[in-house]
Amino acid sequence: MNRYKCIISYDGSGFSGYQVQPNKRTVQCQIEAVLAKIHKGSDVKIAASGRTDAGVHAKGQVIHFDSPLSLPTEKWGLAINSMLPEDISVISVEKADSTFHARFDANGKEYRYFLYQSQKRDPFQRNYAFHYPFPLNLALMRKASIYLLGTHDFSSFCSARTEVEDKVRTIETIEILQDGERISFRFIGNGFLYNMVRILVGTLIEVGSGKRQPEEIVEILEKKDRRYAGKTAPGQGLYLWKVFY
Amino acid sequence: MNRYKCIISYDGSGFSGYQVQPNKRTVQCQIEAVLAKIHKGSDVKIAASGRTDAGVHAKGQVIHFDSPLSLPTEKWGLAINSMLPEDISVISVEKADSTFHARFDANGKEYRYFLYQSQKRDPFQRNYAFHYPFPLNLALMRKASIYLLGTHDFSSFCSARTEVEDKVRTIETIEILQDGERISFRFIGNGFLYNMVRILVGTLIEVGSGKRQPEEIVEILEKKDRRYAGKTAPGQGLYLWKVFY
Repeated sequence: MNRYKCIISYDGSGFSGYQVQPNKRTVQCQIEAVLAKIHKGSDVKIAASGRTDAGVHAKGQVIHFDSPLSLPTEKWGLAINSMLPEDISVISVEKADSTFHARFDANGKEYRYFLYQSQKRDPFQRNYAFHYPFPLNLALMRKASIYLLGTHDFSSFCSARTEVEDKVRTIETIEILQDGERISFRFIGNGFLYNMVRILVGTLIEVGSGKRQPEEIVEILEKKDRRYAGKTAPGQGLYLWKVFY
Repeated sequence: MNRYKCIISYDGSGFSGYQVQPNKRTVQCQIEAVLAKIHKGSDVKIAASGRTDAGVHAKGQVIHFDSPLSLPTEKWGLAINSMLPEDISVISVEKADSTFHARFDANGKEYRYFLYQSQKRDPFQRNYAFHYPFPLNLALMRKASIYLLGTHDFSSFCSARTEVEDKVRTIETIEILQDGERISFRFIGNGFLYNMVRILVGTLIEVGSGKRQPEEIVEILEKKDRRYAGKTAPGQGLYLWKVFY
């Protein structure tokens, strides 16, 4: 058996998220269907660095799979891409150590979130950014983001639906940049809980719009209760950008 | 009656083109359905500067319609946008002279065409640009484009399916720009025939790839026969950018 590590990119608009669900079009289903074809009908399971929700995009999701076939890695990419639908693409394939695991070996992730502030809706951004046509004070948002940096229990910034016990994570970097009507958020950390980036963005937006003070972040973290944080920002603005190993 | 001129933008990916067709989702249908709602069920026909094909986008399509209602123009925009699907947006509404006609009064148009050359397919560009992963010589393409400038019979650059008799048009501007892996074409002229921009781009690509010499443009124009020009470039790279009055 050979273990392969692949970096994949997908436009989440047409998927009910990453993970296999009965009767739904998911990223995992599509890739496993292609691998089954390449393996003449044999099931080949893939493991990803983590799930993404419906509508959420990936520029650098990482998966691994095992195969008895030993094609050159460039051939693997061409073979898989030629059978994948146009909204998923394999960026690279490399041979990995037989112990490599896309999820358990990941020691960090980068997510980005995009919003645009134009007064009119932009049809070309509807699936790729959050339309927020109100003013935002970036200085206040950056001030709030400093309280989020470092190691904290992020229970307040995590969907109540999560099954994970340990909610302590470390955020290394939060960057908030403006380019005309476009605002981008960049988060790098050792791991992110279910909906965590979207709740962080939603809360930072409430700070930027003046509904909350930057200092409230301290209290929200202390409460360890989802109800104290802001709204969950919509999925279409979110991109799993990179996974670190 | 009041006549209104609207600039609209749409993502063509989800439409069978601009014009009404039975049982198809078209831009015109969607807008007329919204206007019928605003007019309590009365039909309100719209006229556009011209059609766009399936998958072709518009940043600045222009339409007009007549209405007995006399709302402030900003209210019109908000009312229509609140009922339109997310892939169409009204950019502006203004009161027009009762003799204004979106098609007959147009005296020029700008189209843009985008292609990207990255080796890997990009899921985020699949509906918005043409993936052409081969080298292109821009100097040759620019040289060829000079032969297209000015007033010519463009029969060779027009779909055989067209019904228009007079195929003489004037192209004022052709710009070909490169930004990393992205190449953009900009065409400004007094009017464009059916599929003309896509055939121009397809032919320029054949020049850029070395299949044709720039000088062949002269002969193609003289032949006045579609079979002498290059392939029709795919629709998803094309944007109706602006209409001039």
